[in-house]
Amino acid sequence: MKLVLDAMGGDHAPVETVAGAVDYARTTGHTVILTGQEDVLQAELAKYDTSGLPLKIVHASQSIAMDEKPAMAARRKRDNSMAVGMRLVKAGEADAFCTVGHTGGALTAGHMVFRRIPGVHRAVLTTPFPSAKGLFILGDIGANPDCKPEWLAQWGQMMAIYAQARLGKTQPRVALLSNGEEEGKGKNLTRATEPLLAELLGDAYIGVVEPKEMIAGEADVVVTDGFTGNILIKSAEAIASYLMQVIKDEIMARPVAKLGAMLARPAFKAAGARLDDREYGAGLLLGLNGIVTVGHGRSKRDRVFFALRSTAQLVEANVLERVRAEVAANVRR
Amino acid sequence: MKLVLDAMGGDHAPVETVAGAVDYARTTGHTVILTGQEDVLQAELAKYDTSGLPLKIVHASQSIAMDEKPAMAARRKRDNSMAVGMRLVKAGEADAFCTVGHTGGALTAGHMVFRRIPGVHRAVLTTPFPSAKGLFILGDIGANPDCKPEWLAQWGQMMAIYAQARLGKTQPRVALLSNGEEEGKGKNLTRATEPLLAELLGDAYIGVVEPKEMIAGEADVVVTDGFTGNILIKSAEAIASYLMQVIKDEIMARPVAKLGAMLARPAFKAAGARLDDREYGAGLLLGLNGIVTVGHGRSKRDRVFFALRSTAQLVEANVLERVRAEVAANVRR
Repeated sequence: MKLVLDAMGGDHAPVETVAGAVDYARTTGHTVILTGQEDVLQAELAKYDTSGLPLKIVHASQSIAMDEKPAMAARRKRDNSMAVGMRLVKAGEADAFCTVGHTGGALTAGHMVFRRIPGVHRAVLTTPFPSAKGLFILGDIGANPDCKPEWLAQWGQMMAIYAQARLGKTQPRVALLSNGEEEGKGKNLTRATEPLLAELLGDAYIGVVEPKEMIAGEADVVVTDGFTGNILIKSAEAIASYLMQVIKDEIMARPVAKLGAMLARPAFKAAGARLDDREYGAGLLLGLNGIVTVGHGRSKRDRVFFALRSTAQLVEANVLERVRAEVAANVRR
Repeated sequence: MKLVLDAMGGDHAPVETVAGAVDYARTTGHTVILTGQEDVLQAELAKYDTSGLPLKIVHASQSIAMDEKPAMAARRKRDNSMAVGMRLVKAGEADAFCTVGHTGGALTAGHMVFRRIPGVHRAVLTTPFPSAKGLFILGDIGANPDCKPEWLAQWGQMMAIYAQARLGKTQPRVALLSNGEEEGKGKNLTRATEPLLAELLGDAYIGVVEPKEMIAGEADVVVTDGFTGNILIKSAEAIASYLMQVIKDEIMARPVAKLGAMLARPAFKAAGARLDDREYGAGLLLGLNGIVTVGHGRSKRDRVFFALRSTAQLVEANVLERVRAEVAANVRR
């Protein structure tokens, strides 16, 4: 297994990206190729005892900063650490590419380097998302704000393969996110998508779900447009941290409650672990001729570790070949 | 002040609707006209000492059940408790109409009875929503899943008047919900809406907000399409109750944590009060020739009380006349 990590991507690069890569290489024995400014990465690696570890550096003279306009930056900076890394994968020198850097940059560079799988309408950005019954796969979470019905239907198909590989579901239940299942509910896009999903996926398509059913874990794959999906994941994050802040504020304002919270700490920790999104790993940009995963921009070493681990899972499950075969089978039909 | 309450609407009608109306009439001295099955409502009222209270019943032989297809039911059942109540307002016998029943039914009946204010493109369903800095007004939350830019721009204008009345903001900051403010972000609808909002609202339009900024309280009015808005409020509810459930589960599984949680109870209660949506009152269906408010379907008496109270606020602030004047001024321009 050889993974490429964009060592320059993310809010805490290169310190945390390199640290996560070292941990990962040590734990798994997988090769990690770090792309980025060679001298900077050498200096970071020198902090660790890396003797015998399968770590390599491939120099990239440029990088895409978190505050840059991604599409322009990816086009202008041909030697950015994302594109350099992806080209290694394309050349067969590695199995997959992972970044915790700029999502937009990864989208643009991914399209430029890998191109779409023939027959794929649009690539879709997906992520594991928590429900009461474990993780499910949600997408599009931001690659395509304006969508056509046939794109969403195809995403359902590709995401089902991803769910098999990532969640170990042999027969993933695929659903379409909507505002109600009664007739007349939904929007033009969802109403036009429903019959296409039913046709393409047969019994695997379980119909529309509302957010409540989604969070209850009634589907393994939830398809939506990239605008709705993006607002959804960002709202979830904002609302969850607001809730936690309100509870924390009220506890801290009361000495007895503070004592109580100390006693309850193991429960809070356990709840935190169940809700923690670090272990979800990276999201997958699905539909390109190469595996591109994108982790959270705020990733520290542990998240980088999990991002790499979830990327390796996709390689092991042969997701790319399976998506290619499935799409090709549909194009022929 | 005379308010009409659809006494047959909501999951807990008529028991809780009548109870809430009795509390409200007793507390405020405002008249509440209950619409619905006369004998049923008489029997409910008989449970209380209502002597001297300004409560009236107006018979409606039909009602729209929570599981009915609302548009069809509202059309077929001309004598439903919503339409009967709205016609009282239209006839000048009451100032506003409130229901905690079927949103879709209220939408259809509202349009049939009141019609849109001349110059209003589409009516918008709005709701107060919590942020770190108090409530803001969010809409559309479900009346119009597919939208045009000029609708959203006009909603921003009407919702600003609502925010003045409901939140006491003299100069409400109006924002458009989007997935990022960088160039190229957003979807076709939001990009086309931005210049219209800027033109219509001038400095009151503060640009796009992402969910994080919205929850931080950076705007007093947040405009979005009815699909995104509906998914947003339903996701918020689902995610908040899932989070609370996880924390509760983990506490209950640990005797010491249970003890700690007992000590921390006042803090949890205070947090609950801050997060509780009961006091938000009802959402306003804005753009019709009459005030129609829609509260939560799960409302019990206290929520019915707050729904009525927030409805009265809108009458007192003369929201309807102000919206009419503002829309007319724009049509003339």
